[in-house]
Amino acid sequence: MKTQDCGALRAAHDSTATTLSGWVSRRRDHGGIIFIDLRDRSGYVQIVLNPEHTAERLRSEWCVEVTGTVRLRPEGSENPALPTGEVEVMVEGLTVLNPSLTPPFYITDDVDADESLRLRYRYLDLRRPKMQDNLRLRHQTVKYIRDYLDGHGFLEIETPILIKSTPEGARDYLVPSRTHPGNFYALPQSPQQLKQLLMVSGVERYFQIARCFRDEDLRADRQPEFTQLDLEMSFVEEEDVLGLIEGLYAGLVRELTPQFKIKTPFQRLPYADAMARFGSDKPDLRYGLEMADVSDLAAETEFRVFRGILDRGGIIKAMAVPGKGGLTGADMRRMEDTAKEFGAAGMSHVRLTGDGALDSLTDDDALLSPGLRMPVEWVRRLAERAEAQRGDLILLMAGPARLANQWLAAMRSHLAAQMELADPAMLSFAFVTDFPLFQWDDATERWDSAHHPFTAPAPGCEAMLDGEDLASIPSRAYDLVCNGSELASGSIRIHQRELQEKIFSILGYSAEQISERFGHILEAFDYGAPPHGGIAPGIDRLVAMLAGADSLREVIAFPKTQSGSDLLFGAPSGVDAGQLRDLAIRIVE
Amino acid sequence: MKTQDCGALRAAHDSTATTLSGWVSRRRDHGGIIFIDLRDRSGYVQIVLNPEHTAERLRSEWCVEVTGTVRLRPEGSENPALPTGEVEVMVEGLTVLNPSLTPPFYITDDVDADESLRLRYRYLDLRRPKMQDNLRLRHQTVKYIRDYLDGHGFLEIETPILIKSTPEGARDYLVPSRTHPGNFYALPQSPQQLKQLLMVSGVERYFQIARCFRDEDLRADRQPEFTQLDLEMSFVEEEDVLGLIEGLYAGLVRELTPQFKIKTPFQRLPYADAMARFGSDKPDLRYGLEMADVSDLAAETEFRVFRGILDRGGIIKAMAVPGKGGLTGADMRRMEDTAKEFGAAGMSHVRLTGDGALDSLTDDDALLSPGLRMPVEWVRRLAERAEAQRGDLILLMAGPARLANQWLAAMRSHLAAQMELADPAMLSFAFVTDFPLFQWDDATERWDSAHHPFTAPAPGCEAMLDGEDLASIPSRAYDLVCNGSELASGSIRIHQRELQEKIFSILGYSAEQISERFGHILEAFDYGAPPHGGIAPGIDRLVAMLAGADSLREVIAFPKTQSGSDLLFGAPSGVDAGQLRDLAIRIVE
Repeated sequence: MKTQDCGALRAAHDSTATTLSGWVSRRRDHGGIIFIDLRDRSGYVQIVLNPEHTAERLRSEWCVEVTGTVRLRPEGSENPALPTGEVEVMVEGLTVLNPSLTPPFYITDDVDADESLRLRYRYLDLRRPKMQDNLRLRHQTVKYIRDYLDGHGFLEIETPILIKSTPEGARDYLVPSRTHPGNFYALPQSPQQLKQLLMVSGVERYFQIARCFRDEDLRADRQPEFTQLDLEMSFVEEEDVLGLIEGLYAGLVRELTPQFKIKTPFQRLPYADAMARFGSDKPDLRYGLEMADVSDLAAETEFRVFRGILDRGGIIKAMAVPGKGGLTGADMRRMEDTAKEFGAAGMSHVRLTGDGALDSLTDDDALLSPGLRMPVEWVRRLAERAEAQRGDLILLMAGPARLANQWLAAMRSHLAAQMELADPAMLSFAFVTDFPLFQWDDATERWDSAHHPFTAPAPGCEAMLDGEDLASIPSRAYDLVCNGSELASGSIRIHQRELQEKIFSILGYSAEQISERFGHILEAFDYGAPPHGGIAPGIDRLVAMLAGADSLREVIAFPKTQSGSDLLFGAPSGVDAGQLRDLAIRIVE
Repeated sequence: MKTQDCGALRAAHDSTATTLSGWVSRRRDHGGIIFIDLRDRSGYVQIVLNPEHTAERLRSEWCVEVTGTVRLRPEGSENPALPTGEVEVMVEGLTVLNPSLTPPFYITDDVDADESLRLRYRYLDLRRPKMQDNLRLRHQTVKYIRDYLDGHGFLEIETPILIKSTPEGARDYLVPSRTHPGNFYALPQSPQQLKQLLMVSGVERYFQIARCFRDEDLRADRQPEFTQLDLEMSFVEEEDVLGLIEGLYAGLVRELTPQFKIKTPFQRLPYADAMARFGSDKPDLRYGLEMADVSDLAAETEFRVFRGILDRGGIIKAMAVPGKGGLTGADMRRMEDTAKEFGAAGMSHVRLTGDGALDSLTDDDALLSPGLRMPVEWVRRLAERAEAQRGDLILLMAGPARLANQWLAAMRSHLAAQMELADPAMLSFAFVTDFPLFQWDDATERWDSAHHPFTAPAPGCEAMLDGEDLASIPSRAYDLVCNGSELASGSIRIHQRELQEKIFSILGYSAEQISERFGHILEAFDYGAPPHGGIAPGIDRLVAMLAGADSLREVIAFPKTQSGSDLLFGAPSGVDAGQLRDLAIRIVE
């Protein structure tokens, strides 16, 4: 029903016969002659119909087959914006394959339809060229990943979707078993244990483009089901995994989206440095705005806010904002309001005005927050620490270390966006390494894994597991970050039963819970489990980044809303009483 | 931790240094020198240790790293059965990476451990070279499929696993929604509706290696979750799909498993012919044993069995078995017992003895079943119809058409196996086409779709939908079969709302059910849905066939038992009361 794709016709096809199939996009009527932009997945071409082809009936989104002859457009009527703009097709035969109702929104890239309407009619929304491009880019991205890993000796192995529930981390989706009444399968949050068992199986190099499921309260841009590249290797150390992943991402961007600039090798940034310099473990490295801990300088002041924070074990961090020393007091109050929106109790600052070296700074050139009264000499030392020049602004954030970092990092992102510091054409990849093994969870009053409980402590630090200072134990976990987003997370794993059991017990699991939830993997470690490690890059976010999409929903064919609804099919939905009877469950009203 | 794979070492590596990591397989002790077959996923190599390497401690399945020097084995001690058999590695350094308990079964291909033990310790079972080969073949098969379809302009698109329950065909697996209490998602039995919606979306060429789920009572070789290549194309007719699939399978076998013989082009066999000649819609075409309807000849006899069957609308079918005319009466009674095991009430026969042309046949040369008394002239006509020669056996099966075919087809398979007629090195692919649209279901007393309700009737037959003779309506469905198995099933689909609604109503759905279950796809058809069709080849069975495996479980990394249990993880299992409370469901005791 088609000999060619609409978008493939060029001047070279002049005077050749063609059969096309596609959808009526735009139509124009010029003195009885009808011009239609015919669209298929390859693009558009103009077709020209005489009234005898009943073209007057054709409406938007009708599906048609046309036979005709390609010809050069009359001089002056070419459309250089269209790849097929030099030609048109003189239609000789027309078949309506299927008419269409009037669509609820226009099928164009600048559609401003409400997203819920777009999701309700997703099959029309996906007809938009941008959405077709996104689907194609996703296909190409995943294809590139598979080819690359195949070339590096990896086997793709499918792991089950119906597995055992081992609640840990997020909530499991459950699936009642009909054949084992009262029992349930769970959908995997990730194939973590399965891939480790594949290493025990001697597979050595495994990957999978894996569907994962988390029954969480969905934040703005999360989906209940999502896709990750799940990858695991035996007989490796950190750099083996990072080198492989760097080659993958660098090659992928250069091949598929060469419009982006990247720098290799990717920076390796220890977690402690990332927190110190950027207040975040996923910093956007496209711009500076680095931070410095100035608690010692702050301790010299009489400023009550600083003293109070320092007395309670908090920190004071400074961040220089180049060229913003000339902001007014009103500007600064607005900026402080922004900091408060991010959760900060307040924010102090120093504005350095004038030109020239810091040495020439006078008291008049340094405008300090109300309450912060310090001699110019102190300001000069502060400026040196914060690497600020005259003409710059220095922000000072006080608080418990975790929160001061979080608030100041939020200010960093906010100001970078406002000042347009980030080059949108740059993808600034980096590996954040040496994460801590544990973090204290104030809510549950327990130690939690910073990555997950299968992560190995740094070599030689095993003895610290018996000590008090668990927060200081370094782990073998690493993240891949880019432009302020975490793209992948991984670690070298534990492969010895005793060590793994100790970690579980530090995390507060009872012996019974350990055996019930993790007995199978602990037992597997008893049979010559090899040293191994891996990583799990998210696919949805990667494709969204490469596509320049605002939301993951733009790169998923049939996404769900924030409340987990499928607006097209109307899922989830009620089911027949018979189905529930079969499963031996009842709904609690 | 390894510079080379064990299985990669050759004579060319003589005198080079190597670092290997792997598992201790076999060990032999020759006068204090210890020889170990070290195994990794690539194969085995012999390593030689002196006692100072504490080799006396090493036991089966310990995971070790060794450094050493490759050398040629002493003359006379080479092992030609092993690819690395010309060399051995003189070990200089040994690190035990992880010791192992004694495995519950030997890690060799001739393991005779009980399958449930193998599944319980799947991570050890997968260490066997044959299982590693199966995993590799599966990876290569799926890779080949993806590359082929990418090369043919297909996009791989992921469709959701959490969808709406539209019970139709098998039972759905359900997933309770926490955010919409009392509502459920279902796991897809196949992405049928989703892929059709992708055609409405203008994708034109879609595929996916898709996980599918059916909550059925599992037959011998079914899995609750299985993998299919799901594929759909727009603007196509039957031959477009079949040609694509033929190229895929032929290329795949020639590239990955050239030990198999195949013939192209694949035979196209109309359903009616397949049933007439082989009594089956998935015949094994590696051998003859064809059938013929001899109801008219049977009607000439006085034999009460035949008369009774014919009076009730049944048929009599004949099948010649070459060279078996000399079987004894006792042999024939045993063969009749076999037919009874397949469900037949009985089976008649004619044995043609002697040599020479049929013309020379005498009454003495034709041995007929007791009760079947007919002159030699009738026997000669029967033999001609059945294409039997002197020296052959003719089996006669009487019954309702469906059952007579089923029983005689079972005898055909049985005899072919017994007589070793099927060349195990031959893959005999064929497309069975022109399936009927409907079949009558005696159990539910309703018309059922022979393929599925989205299958289009043959062009020009739409008017028959308003008639009485629904069983005679031909459809646009087709199967790919090979060596007696169905490998794929597909059809050209309906793309018009009115026709689709008529089919649903013939199938007995009420207007309300149609709207509730299929409203979204019917509505999509209203917006210029293109003509489209597709196919869904099973991946598990294909790989099992290529691997020469008896069971699908041999080519699935973590399969479930027939009762749907995962013996390694212990799924399905009980869950916390809190999990059920979150989901607002309760178990019915």
